[in-house]
Amino acid sequence: MPGSKILRNLNPHVSVDCVVFGFEFGRLNVLLIERNTSFKGKEYHDLKLPGDLVRKDEDLDTAASRVLRELTGLDKIYLKQFAAIGSPVRLKRQARDMEWLRSIGHPEEIVVTIAYYSLINIDQDKAASFLLQPHSRWYMVSEVNDLAFDHIAILQQALEILRADLKSKPIAYELLPPKFTLGQLQQLHEVILGVKLDKRNFRKKVANMPYIMPINEKQIDVSHKPAQYFSFHRKIYEKTKTASFSAC
Amino acid sequence: MPGSKILRNLNPHVSVDCVVFGFEFGRLNVLLIERNTSFKGKEYHDLKLPGDLVRKDEDLDTAASRVLRELTGLDKIYLKQFAAIGSPVRLKRQARDMEWLRSIGHPEEIVVTIAYYSLINIDQDKAASFLLQPHSRWYMVSEVNDLAFDHIAILQQALEILRADLKSKPIAYELLPPKFTLGQLQQLHEVILGVKLDKRNFRKKVANMPYIMPINEKQIDVSHKPAQYFSFHRKIYEKTKTASFSAC
Repeated sequence: MPGSKILRNLNPHVSVDCVVFGFEFGRLNVLLIERNTSFKGKEYHDLKLPGDLVRKDEDLDTAASRVLRELTGLDKIYLKQFAAIGSPVRLKRQARDMEWLRSIGHPEEIVVTIAYYSLINIDQDKAASFLLQPHSRWYMVSEVNDLAFDHIAILQQALEILRADLKSKPIAYELLPPKFTLGQLQQLHEVILGVKLDKRNFRKKVANMPYIMPINEKQIDVSHKPAQYFSFHRKIYEKTKTASFSAC
Repeated sequence: MPGSKILRNLNPHVSVDCVVFGFEFGRLNVLLIERNTSFKGKEYHDLKLPGDLVRKDEDLDTAASRVLRELTGLDKIYLKQFAAIGSPVRLKRQARDMEWLRSIGHPEEIVVTIAYYSLINIDQDKAASFLLQPHSRWYMVSEVNDLAFDHIAILQQALEILRADLKSKPIAYELLPPKFTLGQLQQLHEVILGVKLDKRNFRKKVANMPYIMPINEKQIDVSHKPAQYFSFHRKIYEKTKTASFSAC
């Protein structure tokens, strides 16, 4: 069996899967791997999350980084563990998934997977577009309808966490340039939340956020009426958000 | 080997461990199991978290509930997954831990553990004190210094999450009675955060929380000056906390 030699150093029961979101203006992408397989005389070009078994000599975080690097070329990306998924039937949804596991020498037994997620800015992080391995590519999240195994459920769970993080953490301002327009801020929220937002309501809410402040600068060289630039003030944000009790 | 028959239905590489916090006024407890073992002619009465291997026919959440019920008697407790821990050396910290694993027929190989946590109110949930199995008992968190395997690190991680949750979620008001004094609210925070809080600062912060409102009622039958009762208003809390963008 071709994979059996490698398999000796792998824990056959534990894998890692990585949901890497790539933000660029106007769209939210996810990094997927094309899996070409033939089953019962038919060719399939399924998509899956980058993932593989964990080695016996590495911890889970190391495994996630290694697997992502090996399968996609993406390196030195901060990956956050967000779930362990271990339903006994998770790999058995489709017969061709199990056939593929057999073909690469992996067991078809229970595999608990530890899921990681990451959010990178494709525009800023040029490495994200150059380093990809063949068969790995960015896909628009809104156009992904089906994935191998239970990966669509894992993607959905990651998306919910990303959306919750957008509401409770200042990640929007890490994706935006230091000075941004309210139009950019709104578009970012629309792309990640997957909904259209009402412009007037949006601006009313921004007006109530003391950590988003106008700066004395407007857009130049634009064909429309130049928009005001704003900036994010982290210290004020942190003070606002920790309106809770802590050691005095 | 006594455990080998049972082991056939277990996944030898994946376990669950449960950190169950029990709140009662004045103290924060954690549910631990006494592990009596002898090693090199000496008796040891170590403590460990309730945990065991996952069965091949159950998912992780089911495993966590089952293991907690079997080992402690606690049933129908909401358990929240918070981490997967898989360092290759996590079970090898002490020779007597490995000796114990051998004695119960468990492998000494890599075991990735999925950690769960829960917070219950011991005063309100009387079942918590009656249903415990022998060898399982509540211990004050502040007095737990060492545990078997890497369990002290797992407990520490759960404690950090509990403290973060106390700051970002309304769990304090689920632990308190519907009407409470500011002294009770402060004591609850001190017990969970493990620090003393300054009374004046604490009350100043409460005054800035529109969702904590005085009610027209004071303590009765107390030897000291009767304190004002307050209540928690969930709707106002939710409005305050979601000062973020959502679909309009």
